[in-house]
Amino acid sequence: MENKQNIFSKIENRTITVGIIGLGYVGLPLAVAFALERVKVIGFDMSDEKVTSVNNARNYIADVQNADLQKVVNGAYLKATDNFSELKHCDAVIICVPTPLDRFKKPDMAHIENACVAIGRNMKPGTFVSLESTTYPTTTEDFVLPILERESGLQQGVDFWLAFSPERVDPGNRHFHTRNTPKVLGALTPDGLKIGKAVYEICIDKVYMVSSPRVAEMVKILENTYRLVNISLINEMALLCGKMDINIWEVIDAAKTKPYGFQAFYPGPGIGGHCIPLDPFYLEYIAKKFNFDLSMIHTAGHIDMMMPHRMTIKITSALNRHKKAVNGSRILFLGIAYKPDIDDSRESPALRMIDEVAAKGGNVLYHDPFIKQATTPQGIQMKSVELNEAELANADCVVITTNHTLFDADFILQHSALIVDLKDLIKEASGKVYKL
Amino acid sequence: MENKQNIFSKIENRTITVGIIGLGYVGLPLAVAFALERVKVIGFDMSDEKVTSVNNARNYIADVQNADLQKVVNGAYLKATDNFSELKHCDAVIICVPTPLDRFKKPDMAHIENACVAIGRNMKPGTFVSLESTTYPTTTEDFVLPILERESGLQQGVDFWLAFSPERVDPGNRHFHTRNTPKVLGALTPDGLKIGKAVYEICIDKVYMVSSPRVAEMVKILENTYRLVNISLINEMALLCGKMDINIWEVIDAAKTKPYGFQAFYPGPGIGGHCIPLDPFYLEYIAKKFNFDLSMIHTAGHIDMMMPHRMTIKITSALNRHKKAVNGSRILFLGIAYKPDIDDSRESPALRMIDEVAAKGGNVLYHDPFIKQATTPQGIQMKSVELNEAELANADCVVITTNHTLFDADFILQHSALIVDLKDLIKEASGKVYKL
Repeated sequence: MENKQNIFSKIENRTITVGIIGLGYVGLPLAVAFALERVKVIGFDMSDEKVTSVNNARNYIADVQNADLQKVVNGAYLKATDNFSELKHCDAVIICVPTPLDRFKKPDMAHIENACVAIGRNMKPGTFVSLESTTYPTTTEDFVLPILERESGLQQGVDFWLAFSPERVDPGNRHFHTRNTPKVLGALTPDGLKIGKAVYEICIDKVYMVSSPRVAEMVKILENTYRLVNISLINEMALLCGKMDINIWEVIDAAKTKPYGFQAFYPGPGIGGHCIPLDPFYLEYIAKKFNFDLSMIHTAGHIDMMMPHRMTIKITSALNRHKKAVNGSRILFLGIAYKPDIDDSRESPALRMIDEVAAKGGNVLYHDPFIKQATTPQGIQMKSVELNEAELANADCVVITTNHTLFDADFILQHSALIVDLKDLIKEASGKVYKL
Repeated sequence: MENKQNIFSKIENRTITVGIIGLGYVGLPLAVAFALERVKVIGFDMSDEKVTSVNNARNYIADVQNADLQKVVNGAYLKATDNFSELKHCDAVIICVPTPLDRFKKPDMAHIENACVAIGRNMKPGTFVSLESTTYPTTTEDFVLPILERESGLQQGVDFWLAFSPERVDPGNRHFHTRNTPKVLGALTPDGLKIGKAVYEICIDKVYMVSSPRVAEMVKILENTYRLVNISLINEMALLCGKMDINIWEVIDAAKTKPYGFQAFYPGPGIGGHCIPLDPFYLEYIAKKFNFDLSMIHTAGHIDMMMPHRMTIKITSALNRHKKAVNGSRILFLGIAYKPDIDDSRESPALRMIDEVAAKGGNVLYHDPFIKQATTPQGIQMKSVELNEAELANADCVVITTNHTLFDADFILQHSALIVDLKDLIKEASGKVYKL
């Protein structure tokens, strides 16, 4: 009871110290959001580079405002460290580490495990712990809880509280950011739920409580499985429309006039980013433990897995009409970011296409105004070329893989000999443009 | 040119006569909508019952207002007939006949074919023809057009005009009806598109033009494929959630708090109605002609096909906890309409469940406040029983298959011994309720 009153009073008078583990695209915006409310925040990261950047108020996350970071660092509300023993100063600890999949789509829990061990060994009694990393349902109860109790010797619900609250960061979203995106929260015990709500409400407008961590875990998976399945559906329909001489983008725009029961998704070369290509496969992983086969996710994953290959066939077919082979052709990719107007190429389908085209002997180049250099999954190191008349004219085929707002469709159309447009950038009908 | 000016002037001064073929849930509301604009409408149907009902202003479609039907019939704006030679009096003919699938999910084009033969043999030069029946893309160009030209000896684009404009009727929708639901229209030739737009704008606020009939055909399929795939996804996730002790409805309500990129679908015993279980399979049918396999539709179809069976297993498991078998148990189904508050049991998953439970020796009954009698796909003829204390108490298992607003959850919970709730009607936690 003393612990509980203690944390509530610290929240109320803003003397709470919040620890954020992982200072990436989730953790840093959250740390800044707390610190802007004049709460002391300690950011933990094993990367010297990130720790040094934060402590020097050098911003590296596009969704964070430079001025905000400077304000909270200079005001001593936010500091970063790689010394996890400082967790003992924290009243609330929020885990924002990545949960990658390995090449066999098995969840890699090492980052969560390391964070939990560090918390368990260092936290003081009365700490609220929240996991934000997307993971399979039951992780908080069956994976995190045992580590915390074992390493700390403390008991959940008595000496500390554990919750799950999925991050909903949408990089580049101009309308929804940390404060105004409702936050789902599920805790192991009622006290943990109340404390977690009070902690998050320091910097988030609306906290939506659910009955358990596993419900909260499933919420995030459902949100992104919905997106995976619908993008895969529209990609498959786009491939059929290509064969049937139907413009899929025209179909989608017309379907959008239905005033109920429809949400538009747009096709492209595949699914990228840190969430949609990963999250559903956490669920597929844990489903097997329940002897359950998630056929929709499996089918969607299969469609997505095949997209770079199918798109490479589009390039092959386009070049073929010019009596050219991929082997020896100069192929310029426009855009390697996984969505428009961001600087992130994680899981980018363009990079997977580049690997496949390069493996067939294509002479590959790329231009992306936001990403100056990149390494493909197969390890090809590349630098962005300039987007100019000569580069366009020299390419045997120009492939549009991201529809950055900066791209000038008329300029690209005018100076290219052959275009494979996978993002409906070129609206004008032209014999030299091949659409998805 | 004379034909074209003729029809435009008839539209302008409202002397146009519109023929509507098929007076079902699509055709009758459309006929009434035109007639309410003081345009003369002739409704064609082979059913004596429907023709007589319309001519006596007896309404049989829930989405049509009785007063509207009386007004247009009494005002002599609408009459019905089974004499297709009267098509010669029509300036515009709109085909609203059903396109069922046979048991092997092959489109049954007989109704469209019969309508086209009748139009071809009877229409006068200068007629605008529009198909509204959902069907596979290319139907208008490759199936309807040849029949019309062959039977009439007239030429499309010169002597008559052909278009496709998908119906978007959503039975029971209180906000969107014929007038305020935007209408997609694709015609074979530019004149046909202009004429079609003018015809439909007599009674519809917004007509959205696309470049071809096949695009318009694909629009409708995309809209309903989106729904099939998402309902199937949520049904599959519901089954997994059941195994993981997670309430799927709680998950959906929480996911809905995401202010972007999510649309909620709800699970249930399967997919019913006249559109969603059918439309995607027209596309799957024609895709084969293009050597294309629509894996998402196939997977969704498989999930839906298995739902009644899986739901029967839920009933079996629930009864098993009471040491009872399906064989010999009295099983009462609440709701056989395919969605709440409507009187339509077409493709109802409840009826498919009833067949399966009956085949296992279950003593099946149903109550539906809107459907007094029904025949299952396997031919079992049933009458709705009353929903009272005795019927609930006498049932070994009560199965909630439709969440009609009329259903009193407390009453049902109080008087039933065992409930399998597939629609989240019973919110209260109770040991006698088994959820999907």
